[in-house]
Amino acid sequence: MLGVGMGPQHVTQEVAGALRAADYVLAARKGEDDGLLAARRAVAGAFGLEVVEVGDPERDRAAPGGYPGAVAAWHDARVAAYEPVLRERGGTAAFLVWGDPSLYDSTIRVVARLAERLPADYDVLPGVSAPQVLAARHRIVLHEVGRPVHVTTARRLRQAVAAGQANIVVMLGSALDLDGLGDWRIWWGANLGTGAEELAAGRVADVLDEITAARARAKAAAGWVMDVYLLRGPVDV
Amino acid sequence: MLGVGMGPQHVTQEVAGALRAADYVLAARKGEDDGLLAARRAVAGAFGLEVVEVGDPERDRAAPGGYPGAVAAWHDARVAAYEPVLRERGGTAAFLVWGDPSLYDSTIRVVARLAERLPADYDVLPGVSAPQVLAARHRIVLHEVGRPVHVTTARRLRQAVAAGQANIVVMLGSALDLDGLGDWRIWWGANLGTGAEELAAGRVADVLDEITAARARAKAAAGWVMDVYLLRGPVDV
Repeated sequence: MLGVGMGPQHVTQEVAGALRAADYVLAARKGEDDGLLAARRAVAGAFGLEVVEVGDPERDRAAPGGYPGAVAAWHDARVAAYEPVLRERGGTAAFLVWGDPSLYDSTIRVVARLAERLPADYDVLPGVSAPQVLAARHRIVLHEVGRPVHVTTARRLRQAVAAGQANIVVMLGSALDLDGLGDWRIWWGANLGTGAEELAAGRVADVLDEITAARARAKAAAGWVMDVYLLRGPVDV
Repeated sequence: MLGVGMGPQHVTQEVAGALRAADYVLAARKGEDDGLLAARRAVAGAFGLEVVEVGDPERDRAAPGGYPGAVAAWHDARVAAYEPVLRERGGTAAFLVWGDPSLYDSTIRVVARLAERLPADYDVLPGVSAPQVLAARHRIVLHEVGRPVHVTTARRLRQAVAAGQANIVVMLGSALDLDGLGDWRIWWGANLGTGAEELAAGRVADVLDEITAARARAKAAAGWVMDVYLLRGPVDV
């Protein structure tokens, strides 16, 4: 399982070595317009590797157990989809993780289950994650000197703010909801490291329209949009 | 300014390109036994680059303004030490950041000041950070499904626990102080990605002795020890 950052430019020496030793790339296909599949194809192509595509099961948002239940059911479905392919092809499969496998990605959980069932061995190699690319593009450190950075999802942003967090990296957003945070500062990026990259930074109230327009531009250019941003409160607690 | 992860194996394609285009590496030397300088020499050597070493100013822990004041004074001293070297040598200097420049590293702040004074342009390229290597080695995701991860320093760990954080990545530790957290789970690593790497995981009370011994082993083997760990509370809030 290989973290590949935001594209071929972020492939590390050890990931490159693992790709040269792999027999094929195994990847999920989410519909026809899967931008991340295209990114995986670009990385695999650079190493002459075939991409074996498996249709990605729909996530059943009505599964019992709420959000974690839906995710668990979806992991099961992914395991069931990958297992016969791995049994039939054998050899060494590479799973390419956009960004890094340690943040908001379920590939480790799926591969660990596959490894148990087959059985098979697996390694995990880290990659550059989206918050790091965001920080590099804005040329910032993700926190004030010696202070914490809280990484969470757009879904849980309000909870983090209510708990007093004032330096928050937000991932997995769909639309931007920053009501009441107009005085915060934001460093925002979408489709980082791709040709459709967009960046904006400033006081939330001042740059919200700019971000909304940039988000639409990224989506129009790439067919998909993934954004990540750092929010810092007016008083850091 | 180039994030190089934990060593040459984590150098990305774009960082490799920047190293090929650089004229020399500029690096601080902290005493004779500087393990991170040795790591920088290994990366520079792989690209045939000279390492220009500048004696690192002592951090004045008695400077006014407490910890931030001491850090600011030390930034000033670093800027003053680097500036004449950059003026004299000219060309393109590469600053190699162990891990990634976005987490608990002051290189961006120092280089931004240098760029203003010279003046000069600079770029920041991301690298693999220590928490990602930790997660990869333990083959874990840094958080439960859809939940936050709080990244902080050993100095501020107690503050994070008191604020209700229960999934905490701790960086910049000196000695381990985990009193009262015996029921938490820990995924711990030291000198990650080096020949002196040590790993341990389990319930804190069960593995604390093992970690203490492993930490001493890493220090004895490398002459220095840098550890990073994930702590997860018995009840995730």
